[in-house]
Amino acid sequence: MSSSSSKPMRTQVEEYIVSLQEQIVTALERLDPKAPAFKRDSWTRAQGGLGQSCVFQVPSDDSTKHDTVLEKAGVNISIVHGKLPPAAVKQMKADHSSLPYNPDSQESIPFLATGLSLVIHPRNPNAPTCHANYRYFEVTEPLVEGADPNEQPKVLAWWFGGGSDLTPSYLFEEDAVHFHSTLKTACDKHSTIFYPTFKKWCDEYFYIPHRQEARGVGGLFFDDLSDAAHARLPDDAPRPRTADEIFAFVRSLGDAFVPSYIPILERRISMPYTPYQRRWQLVRRGRYVEFNLIYDRGTKFGLMTPGARVESILMTLPETVRWEYQCDMGGEGTEEGRLVEVLQKPREWVQ
Amino acid sequence: MSSSSSKPMRTQVEEYIVSLQEQIVTALERLDPKAPAFKRDSWTRAQGGLGQSCVFQVPSDDSTKHDTVLEKAGVNISIVHGKLPPAAVKQMKADHSSLPYNPDSQESIPFLATGLSLVIHPRNPNAPTCHANYRYFEVTEPLVEGADPNEQPKVLAWWFGGGSDLTPSYLFEEDAVHFHSTLKTACDKHSTIFYPTFKKWCDEYFYIPHRQEARGVGGLFFDDLSDAAHARLPDDAPRPRTADEIFAFVRSLGDAFVPSYIPILERRISMPYTPYQRRWQLVRRGRYVEFNLIYDRGTKFGLMTPGARVESILMTLPETVRWEYQCDMGGEGTEEGRLVEVLQKPREWVQ
Repeated sequence: MSSSSSKPMRTQVEEYIVSLQEQIVTALERLDPKAPAFKRDSWTRAQGGLGQSCVFQVPSDDSTKHDTVLEKAGVNISIVHGKLPPAAVKQMKADHSSLPYNPDSQESIPFLATGLSLVIHPRNPNAPTCHANYRYFEVTEPLVEGADPNEQPKVLAWWFGGGSDLTPSYLFEEDAVHFHSTLKTACDKHSTIFYPTFKKWCDEYFYIPHRQEARGVGGLFFDDLSDAAHARLPDDAPRPRTADEIFAFVRSLGDAFVPSYIPILERRISMPYTPYQRRWQLVRRGRYVEFNLIYDRGTKFGLMTPGARVESILMTLPETVRWEYQCDMGGEGTEEGRLVEVLQKPREWVQ
Repeated sequence: MSSSSSKPMRTQVEEYIVSLQEQIVTALERLDPKAPAFKRDSWTRAQGGLGQSCVFQVPSDDSTKHDTVLEKAGVNISIVHGKLPPAAVKQMKADHSSLPYNPDSQESIPFLATGLSLVIHPRNPNAPTCHANYRYFEVTEPLVEGADPNEQPKVLAWWFGGGSDLTPSYLFEEDAVHFHSTLKTACDKHSTIFYPTFKKWCDEYFYIPHRQEARGVGGLFFDDLSDAAHARLPDDAPRPRTADEIFAFVRSLGDAFVPSYIPILERRISMPYTPYQRRWQLVRRGRYVEFNLIYDRGTKFGLMTPGARVESILMTLPETVRWEYQCDMGGEGTEEGRLVEVLQKPREWVQ
């Protein structure tokens, strides 16, 4: 892998996500100076790896007392390395065809996964939930015993993945347009094929089959972005190909997170709302939980991994959630129904 | 299949679950005469089948106003028939070895599934959640075209399944003992091997691997009970073998539901509780949702079935739920911690 920096890509990504985490948490804290600060919680993983969770919550026995902007939020980074057992490599190869691996070898291979992952659940039902993820993955040659521990192992395969998406309880078209436009601008600087491809991928990924609706109004989702051929991108499309170029694209997306979401929060968090709207928000959060626990590959994969940090994986779940039998909200002609309509039929928000 | 009644077993089971549903719903309504009645909701399934959901909920925009005994409850019966596609038959054969099926045949086979399924979530944190299920399954010969529609198709395989289990937020040992004793008495009338075998099966089934704890204090779980050999029962154990005998056992269990659970509700529903205890209850309900959405085979199988009634399947989910990051409740030496201890190490409640 060529690099214009003297630092290996894994180090560059690590430095970037550390600063991005600080930037995002600071922006969220600035929105609500009277609220308690995010709780910074560093951890290490016995099997190899470390991370920092920045979590906002105001646990209390009486949730009616609160008036913080956020109800629950987590902005986590993790740098995890270890060995992938053959079964996991096989599953990974299905999504990442460039992975050099002989399925008959039964070998475990060393990997590194570096990423930032966030979920923001605001309290006001007019303010949408937002999720984002930016990740870098490397598979390396097994370390030779007695080798210089400071020497970087040879990278056999690498790729970037990520995206961000918006989940409102009430539809404000201008919010969806602002969110998508900001992401499209960040994409277009690197390749005009990215926004339409990754927007569609997002609609497909964040879909709840048993409800026949999308989780939210979408955004971007991508994976397996490297110098190799990509299943969803035409081979001849002009696009970033080197690790440096793709990393620049991912940085553009990461840098776009605050401007894509914070202005939306700013115009929604002071809107008055009724108990009826709050109830609808909690019912919608039930759908969020259904998606994350039943379909999300990251959650499923995470929970099945021995030694996984369950608290970090399930940090994505909202604080308060409701399930009603045959909920009578969301009917045609209502404000709630306007959202449902868009979830059932994803829209193009920018041309 | 021999039968001492002139009615086919499918009809006998259907009649029984209809009366059991009424008996259970009436007992719950008697507990709280001022509360609204259960909502009776009959439905039919386009692909074949019908049922009645009896659901209790008091949807409102301000949940602090309620003082009903139950928060959410559903007692559902369903009689569903249709054709199992080859993939589903294959999966079923893994659990039910007596199923006569040639995996190379690629044939769909007609089935009938009759059952009662219930979940009760009381409002008071001292009162435990309870789940129960009693089901009968038949696989029949394909109907010959032009045959008399009143004639019963030949039954190729049949089995009963079911059980019930208790999920408290606070541990009252006498409640667990009462629940298990009542079930054991019902079992012992039919075979002394049933209680220990099905109690253990229940502990294994209702287990949340990523939390390393049981969902609750257990009860009974069994499946695949027929005249054929059973994977968990010694071949020479004295036990009900005929459909009539096994149906009599299942009726004993169904009849034991009200006496196993209602007395527990009676002594807990008027206990005073604090907002702190309510918060712990909502956190525990989060674990209930995690089990049902991630691990429960019935839920998973149901949601994947085309034309499934999603509202009935997800009726099991509690009304209000909380997820906290690194919740500080449940520590050693606390009342909450006493429950956690038992969940981490299932106990024998009766000898």
